[in-house]
Amino acid sequence: MSPPSAPLRPHPDRLLPTDPAVRALARRLYASVRALPILSPHGHVDPRLLVDDAAFPDPATLLVTPDHYITRLLHASGVTLAELGVGQGPLTERQARAAWRRLCEHWQVFRGTPVRYWLESELAEIFGVTERPDSANADRLYDRIAERLAEGAFRPRALFDRFGIEVLATTDDPCDDLAAHRALAADPAFRGRVVPTFRPDRYLEPAEAGWAAAVARLGEAADEDTTTYPGYLRALESRRRYFVAHGATSADHSHPDVRTDPLDPATAARIHATALAGTATAAECTAFRRHMLLEMARMSCEDGLVMTLHPGIRRNHHTPTLHRFGPDTGHDIPVRVEFTDALRPLLERYGTAPGFQLILFTVDESVLSREIAPLAGFYPSVFAGAPWWFLDAPDAIRRARRAVTETAGFTRTSGFVDDTRAFCSVPARHDMSRRLDCGLLAELVAEHRLDEDEAFATARDLVDAIPRKAFKL
Amino acid sequence: MSPPSAPLRPHPDRLLPTDPAVRALARRLYASVRALPILSPHGHVDPRLLVDDAAFPDPATLLVTPDHYITRLLHASGVTLAELGVGQGPLTERQARAAWRRLCEHWQVFRGTPVRYWLESELAEIFGVTERPDSANADRLYDRIAERLAEGAFRPRALFDRFGIEVLATTDDPCDDLAAHRALAADPAFRGRVVPTFRPDRYLEPAEAGWAAAVARLGEAADEDTTTYPGYLRALESRRRYFVAHGATSADHSHPDVRTDPLDPATAARIHATALAGTATAAECTAFRRHMLLEMARMSCEDGLVMTLHPGIRRNHHTPTLHRFGPDTGHDIPVRVEFTDALRPLLERYGTAPGFQLILFTVDESVLSREIAPLAGFYPSVFAGAPWWFLDAPDAIRRARRAVTETAGFTRTSGFVDDTRAFCSVPARHDMSRRLDCGLLAELVAEHRLDEDEAFATARDLVDAIPRKAFKL
Amino acid sequence: MSPPSAPLRPHPDRLLPTDPAVRALARRLYASVRALPILSPHGHVDPRLLVDDAAFPDPATLLVTPDHYITRLLHASGVTLAELGVGQGPLTERQARAAWRRLCEHWQVFRGTPVRYWLESELAEIFGVTERPDSANADRLYDRIAERLAEGAFRPRALFDRFGIEVLATTDDPCDDLAAHRALAADPAFRGRVVPTFRPDRYLEPAEAGWAAAVARLGEAADEDTTTYPGYLRALESRRRYFVAHGATSADHSHPDVRTDPLDPATAARIHATALAGTATAAECTAFRRHMLLEMARMSCEDGLVMTLHPGIRRNHHTPTLHRFGPDTGHDIPVRVEFTDALRPLLERYGTAPGFQLILFTVDESVLSREIAPLAGFYPSVFAGAPWWFLDAPDAIRRARRAVTETAGFTRTSGFVDDTRAFCSVPARHDMSRRLDCGLLAELVAEHRLDEDEAFATARDLVDAIPRKAFKL
Repeated sequence: MSPPSAPLRPHPDRLLPTDPAVRALARRLYASVRALPILSPHGHVDPRLLVDDAAFPDPATLLVTPDHYITRLLHASGVTLAELGVGQGPLTERQARAAWRRLCEHWQVFRGTPVRYWLESELAEIFGVTERPDSANADRLYDRIAERLAEGAFRPRALFDRFGIEVLATTDDPCDDLAAHRALAADPAFRGRVVPTFRPDRYLEPAEAGWAAAVARLGEAADEDTTTYPGYLRALESRRRYFVAHGATSADHSHPDVRTDPLDPATAARIHATALAGTATAAECTAFRRHMLLEMARMSCEDGLVMTLHPGIRRNHHTPTLHRFGPDTGHDIPVRVEFTDALRPLLERYGTAPGFQLILFTVDESVLSREIAPLAGFYPSVFAGAPWWFLDAPDAIRRARRAVTETAGFTRTSGFVDDTRAFCSVPARHDMSRRLDCGLLAELVAEHRLDEDEAFATARDLVDAIPRKAFKL
Repeated sequence: MSPPSAPLRPHPDRLLPTDPAVRALARRLYASVRALPILSPHGHVDPRLLVDDAAFPDPATLLVTPDHYITRLLHASGVTLAELGVGQGPLTERQARAAWRRLCEHWQVFRGTPVRYWLESELAEIFGVTERPDSANADRLYDRIAERLAEGAFRPRALFDRFGIEVLATTDDPCDDLAAHRALAADPAFRGRVVPTFRPDRYLEPAEAGWAAAVARLGEAADEDTTTYPGYLRALESRRRYFVAHGATSADHSHPDVRTDPLDPATAARIHATALAGTATAAECTAFRRHMLLEMARMSCEDGLVMTLHPGIRRNHHTPTLHRFGPDTGHDIPVRVEFTDALRPLLERYGTAPGFQLILFTVDESVLSREIAPLAGFYPSVFAGAPWWFLDAPDAIRRARRAVTETAGFTRTSGFVDDTRAFCSVPARHDMSRRLDCGLLAELVAEHRLDEDEAFATARDLVDAIPRKAFKL
Repeated sequence: MSPPSAPLRPHPDRLLPTDPAVRALARRLYASVRALPILSPHGHVDPRLLVDDAAFPDPATLLVTPDHYITRLLHASGVTLAELGVGQGPLTERQARAAWRRLCEHWQVFRGTPVRYWLESELAEIFGVTERPDSANADRLYDRIAERLAEGAFRPRALFDRFGIEVLATTDDPCDDLAAHRALAADPAFRGRVVPTFRPDRYLEPAEAGWAAAVARLGEAADEDTTTYPGYLRALESRRRYFVAHGATSADHSHPDVRTDPLDPATAARIHATALAGTATAAECTAFRRHMLLEMARMSCEDGLVMTLHPGIRRNHHTPTLHRFGPDTGHDIPVRVEFTDALRPLLERYGTAPGFQLILFTVDESVLSREIAPLAGFYPSVFAGAPWWFLDAPDAIRRARRAVTETAGFTRTSGFVDDTRAFCSVPARHDMSRRLDCGLLAELVAEHRLDEDEAFATARDLVDAIPRKAFKL
C-alpha cells in the first residue's frame, strides 16, 4: 500500500510578503481587490468554447495537452510529447488518462514554477481537489475531475460567470468572420463581453511559407484585389474596421524584432509584387515587414485599435518537434530584443498622435528599465506591458514592477494580461497578479514611500482603471 | 467643498529595511552619517545661481519646468510641455502657476517613483509643506512656496549652507571662462567649494552640426590654431589645464558608445581636416571621436583630471519635440552599451597608469555585474559609478549595489553622484543614497556577512573617503 | 601598541534569511543537508596535490598567490601582482610573508565580497583562526597557519577526508596521460574519487598561437596522423575514450561564443589543412572552431561525456599583465553572450538525443531568464549551470535561482559547481550554496509556494540527485 498522498490546500496568504506587519497590510489590500471583475484584454482562449458551451472532454485535454507551459517541462523531464497527447487530435480515454498520469507522476518537477502555482489553485479552487497529485492518486484525481466536468456547473459559460470575467479578448486571424463573437454578442443568455483581437502576423511576413496564399485569402475576406499593394493595404484596413465593428480594441503583433523602417510606397509596392511572385530576397521580405509594422501604427491612429507588440521569440526552435507535433509545442525560445532605435521611426511619426496607444511586451528583462520604462515615461502613447510568457511568474513579475515603476510609475503600465490558452488558469493568474501587486504596494507603504490611501487606490486602479485605459476597454 | 488634503510627512525611517531588527541597526548606521557634509562631484547646477544669489523666481521655475524627470512623466500623462512652461524662457506668474497646478493635479502619476520621493522631501523639509499636493491645494501651496522664496533664507547661498554642501561640481563647456567659479572662489563671503567639470563632447563629435564652429571657438578660447590637428589637440590640453587651474578634478564624456580605437596621427589629422571641410564620412567622424576619447585618457594621465563616462543614451529621441522645445526635454532614451571590448585599447595603454582614474556610469543595468564590476575589480584606475538617471532610484540603487559589490567591493565604487540640475533636490538625493546604503549594510550584518564595526566604517567611507578618492576631491 | 584585533567568528546562521520565522525553517533545512558529502563535478584543483600529499608550502602559496579572485581585487586596490608573488614560481619565506601581509592589510577591500566570506570560513573552520586579519596580526596569523600546515592533519588527503569530498573532478589537457588520476585510483590508501575532465579548447582554436604544435602533440598522444582532418577527429575521439576509461564524465569548453554552425567535411578538411599551414584567415579559424564545437556534441552523443559550456569571457584583457605575469591573473573580463540562435544547429541535431547532456554556464546574467531557462525547460539534454565566476556569490546565486526556477524548476539545473583552484575553499563554497538554497526554499515555503516536505526533499536533491544526474556521477 502506498503512503497517503500529501494534502493540497492553497494558503489564503500565498505570495504575500513574509514580514508579519507587511503581510497584514498586503492582506487588507488584497481583500479590497480580490473579488473585482477580471478584465482579460489579451489571451488565446477559443471563443467557440463559449458558443458551444459543451462539457470539456477530459482532464488531460482541458489541463495538460494544449498547455505548452506544462508539456515543455514534462518534455524536458523525459516525457515525450506523444505520451502527452500533443498533436494527435482528440484523445481516447486511455490516452487522456495516460497523459494525466504523466503530469501527476512528475508533479515535483514543477516545484518553484508558476505552473505549479496555477495548477494548484485550479485543482483546489475549481475542482475541489484536496490531495497533491502523485503517481498513486493520479487515476483517482482523473476520475474526480472527469466527474465534475460532466456537471453543468463546469461548462465553459458557468465557469466564465464563476470566474467573474467581465471582458475576455481572444486572438484572431484577420480573415476570421468572427461568427463566434457575433453569436455570443447576439445571445441574450450570455452576458459576458468577448472581443476579438486583430493578429495579422502571417499577412505581414512575405518570407513565411504560405504568405501569397494568405494574401489571396485576405483579398477574398475583404473583397479587395490584394495582388496590388494598394489593394493589400485597403484589405488590411477593411478587416481592421470589421474587427472594430465586432468589438475589437487592439491589434497584436509578434515578429522577431520591432524595427519600423519606412519604405517609400513605390518600393513597398515593388517588394509586394516580387514577394507574391516568390522572387523577393530575404532582406526585401524583412524590409517589407518592418515597413508594414509602421503601416499598422498608421492604421491604429486611424481606426483606434491599440497596438500591442510581443517581439523577440525564435519560434519553433527544434524543427524535428515542429514537424512531428506542430507549432506552439513548447520550444519558442526568446532572444535579445531592442526597442529604442527600432521604434524610433514609428514614435517620431505617431508617438504623440491623439488616441494612438502602443503596449510593449518583452521576454528580455534587460530592456525593462533600459528602454521600455523610459519610453513609457515620455510618450503619451506608450505603455509598459505586463510580464509575458517566461516572465509571467511571481518573482519575474516582482522584478518587472521594480524595474518599471521607478521610471514610469503605475499609470503607464498595461495592467495584468494572462495571455493564456488555458481557460481554467485565467482566475488563478489574475489572482496571482493581484496578490503580487498588493504585496509590492504594502512594501512601499512599509518603507514609507507611499501612503496607505494611495496603496488602496493604486491596487484598485491596477485591476480596473489602468487596463481599461491601456486597452481602451 | 473639497475634502481636506492628505497630510505630507516624510517618515524618519523611510527607505530603511522593514524587518524590525534590521531596521534598528540601519537607523543607527544612518544616524551616524545623516549629517555629514555633502560631496557632489558631478551635477548640472548653474554656478551663476550662487554668484548672483538672487531669489528663485517662482515654484514652477524652481521645481517643475527645468526638471525633465518631472516634465517627462507629466507629458506621458497627457500634459503638454507647453503647459509646463518648457522652452518658453522666463514664465509669467500666470504661466508658472498653471505649470505648478499641472504637477499638483497629477501628483498620483508619480507614485512609486523617485521624483515623488525627492519632491516630498523637498516640499516638507525645505519649504515646510504639510499637505500632499492635489488640485484643491495647488494654489495654496504655490503661494506658500512663493512666499518662502522671497525670504533671504531661501536664496541659493543660504540653501547651499543649509544643505551642508562641502563640494559642488558643475558641468561646463571647455570654452567657458569660468568667471562664475572665479567669482565664487574670490568671494570671502562664500565658503563653499564649487568646481567646474570639463565636458568636451561637442568638440569631439565631428558628425554633430556645429562642430566646425565649436572647434573655431575652442581655438579662440585657447589661443591656438585649431584648424590643424596638433593645434586642436593643444587647444584641448590648454583648456583642460585652465579648468584644472580653476579647481576642476574631472572631465566628463557622454557619447553613444565608449569605443576607444586609436588612429595613427596622420589619419587623425586627415579626418580632422576633412571634417572641418565638411566632407568627412559618418564612419570617419565616428572613428575620430573614438580616437579622441583615447586622447582624452592620455590627457587625463598627464593633467590628472578624473575621466568619467556616461554613455549609451540616444539623445532627443522625438525630433518634433526637440524642434519645438529644445534638448533635455525628457526623451533621451537609453540603449544597450558595451564596455569590455570598447575600453580595451584605452585600458591596455592607461589602465595601470599611476594617477589615472576612470569612472564608468551606465543606464544599462546588464553591464553592472558583467562588465563594470569585473573591470573595477582588476584595474586600479577603474571605478564603478553610482546608478545614473533612470537608475537613480531606490530599487535600482539597491540592485546596483548588489550587482557590483560582490565582485568589486565598496572601495572600487564612486560614491553617490546626484547628477542633477534641480538644486533643491541635492540633499534629498544624497539622503536617499545614505539611507539605502545603510539599509544594505544593515542587511549584510543581519546575514552575518559583515561585522557591525565594519558596517559603520563603510557607511562613513561611502559618503566621505570613497567619493573623495574616486573624484580626487 | 596597536588596538586588539577584531574577533573572527563566522556565525552559524550566516546567509540565512533574516526574518525570524523564515530563518527558523531555513536552519532546519540547512541542518538536514549541511553534512552531506561534497560532489565537486567541475573545478581546477591539481590532482598531483593528492598524489604527492605533501604539506602545503606556506599560507600565501596556499591561499593568496594562485587565487585570482584575491589577487585581482588587491591589484585594483594598488598592490602589484609582483608583491603578491604572482608569476614568480616558488616563493621564499620572505616573499610569502610579504604577500600574506598585503592580504591582511587590505582585508577591508573584501567587505561584501564572497572572497571575504570564503576566507573567513576557511581561516576559522580549517585553521582555527579567531582574529580578523589586519596589519597588526598579519605575521601572527601567518605563523599560526604555517604551523598548522606542517601538521599531518593539514596535508591534502587529510583535508580531502575532513572536507567530506566524495567526488572531485579536475580539468585536464586532452594529451595528459592522467597518471595522477591512475595513481589515485590504484592507491588503496586513498578512498576518494578524483575524475578528470576533458578540456580541448586549445585544440579547437586554429587562430590561437601554438595550435599546430598542439595538434601535433595530440597526434602523438593518440597515435593518429592529425595532419589530416579525419586523423585529427579520430585523435580527439580516441583521447575522449581514454578520459572516459579513466573516469571522466564530462568535457568542458570555453570559447568566446557558443555558435555551432556546421561545415561540410570537405570544407572542414580544407580549413584544417590551411590552418596547419598557417594560412587560414581569422574567419576560417572561427568557422572551424564553431564546427568543431558541434563535432564535440556529436562525440558526446557517442561516448557519453556530458558537454559543459563556459563561454563569454575575454581572456587576458590587459596584455601587459599577461606578458609579465601570465594567464589567469585576474583580468579575464566577461562579454555579452547569446545561446538561443548560437546553439540551434547543435540542438536541432542532438537536443533530444538519448543520453546527450549539455550544461550551460554564463557570466552574463541577462541570458538566465531569457535563454538558458527556456532552453533547459524544453530540451531534455539541457541543464542550467550554477552561477559561475563573477556570479558565484550570495546575491548573484539568489538572483540566478530566482531567474531560472520559475521557468525550469530545480530539476533542470546542474547543482552547485565550485570551479575553484583554491582547494581549501571547496567546503566553504559548497556550504555557501547549501545555505542559500535552503534560504530560498524556506522563503518559498513562507510564501506558501511549496510545502515543507517538498522543501526538505528539494534541499537534498540539490546537493545529491541533481548534480549526480546532470554530471552523470
